Amino acid sequence: MAATDPDCLFCKIVAGEIPSTVVASDEQTVTFMDINPATRGHALVVPRTHAADVLAIDPDDLAAVARAGRQQARRVMERLGADGVNLLNSCGADAWQTVFHFHLHVIPRYRDDPLRLPWDPAPGDPEEIAGAAGQLRGEA
Amino acid sequence: MAATDPDCLFCKIVAGEIPSTVVASDEQTVTFMDINPATRGHALVVPRTHAADVLAIDPDDLAAVARAGRQQARRVMERLGADGVNLLNSCGADAWQTVFHFHLHVIPRYRDDPLRLPWDPAPGDPEEIAGAAGQLRGEA
Repeated sequence: MAATDPDCLFCKIVAGEIPSTVVASDEQTVTFMDINPATRGHALVVPRTHAADVLAIDPDDLAAVARAGRQQARRVMERLGADGVNLLNSCGADAWQTVFHFHLHVIPRYRDDPLRLPWDPAPGDPEEIAGAAGQLRGEA
Repeated sequence: MAATDPDCLFCKIVAGEIPSTVVASDEQTVTFMDINPATRGHALVVPRTHAADVLAIDPDDLAAVARAGRQQARRVMERLGADGVNLLNSCGADAWQTVFHFHLHVIPRYRDDPLRLPWDPAPGDPEEIAGAAGQLRGEA
């Protein structure tokens, strides 16, 4: 895994080659504002070391991103007066990923904001769930 | 922080007092199937120690959940043939949280599945983004 991908937008942001609005940073991560915010205060946490997605990221970098995401969640509650917060990672174009440098969305939530859960929670078929679980455990 | 909350559904699942379909577990976490799956293979990763949400969770438990979530993401790609995966955490009722024991959703994604991003990505107002960033940095 290369530390930096010369064609990666977020590597350029980490390196300061492309301007961004940074909120926080540490040895392993940078937290900066999303320019296409879902809600007021929407930011992204990225590892400084390039990794395409959650399958590729170094586990220690992932732990650092999680810690930074938790700190950012506290900030949105304390400093923006948010009523809640979502943390979201997308892995793969079919899961809405558009920039292929791992990033954790930290999305402040406000009572009555327009965001809606991407699915309609409803009970699943128990046998089907058990079948998927067996495959996930490597039994199939 | 109590290690276990006697009224918590997920504490009871961790303790085996309520049945669940477990996919994986380690010293700090349990991964089990969501009974209201958004897609085939939808699972939750929880810390064994009770914490209401990402604001309350012990940072070391959060790192363990992130590692377990990464492993579960690999499983859904390799064993379910998913085309992508989303990791989602909800903090607060206004962010869709319904069980108040921290949990990370690991949601397999399939090409042309019905899930839609909760927001419509569009450029935000740069001054407004800068204002939110200033507040997040504690400048306001």
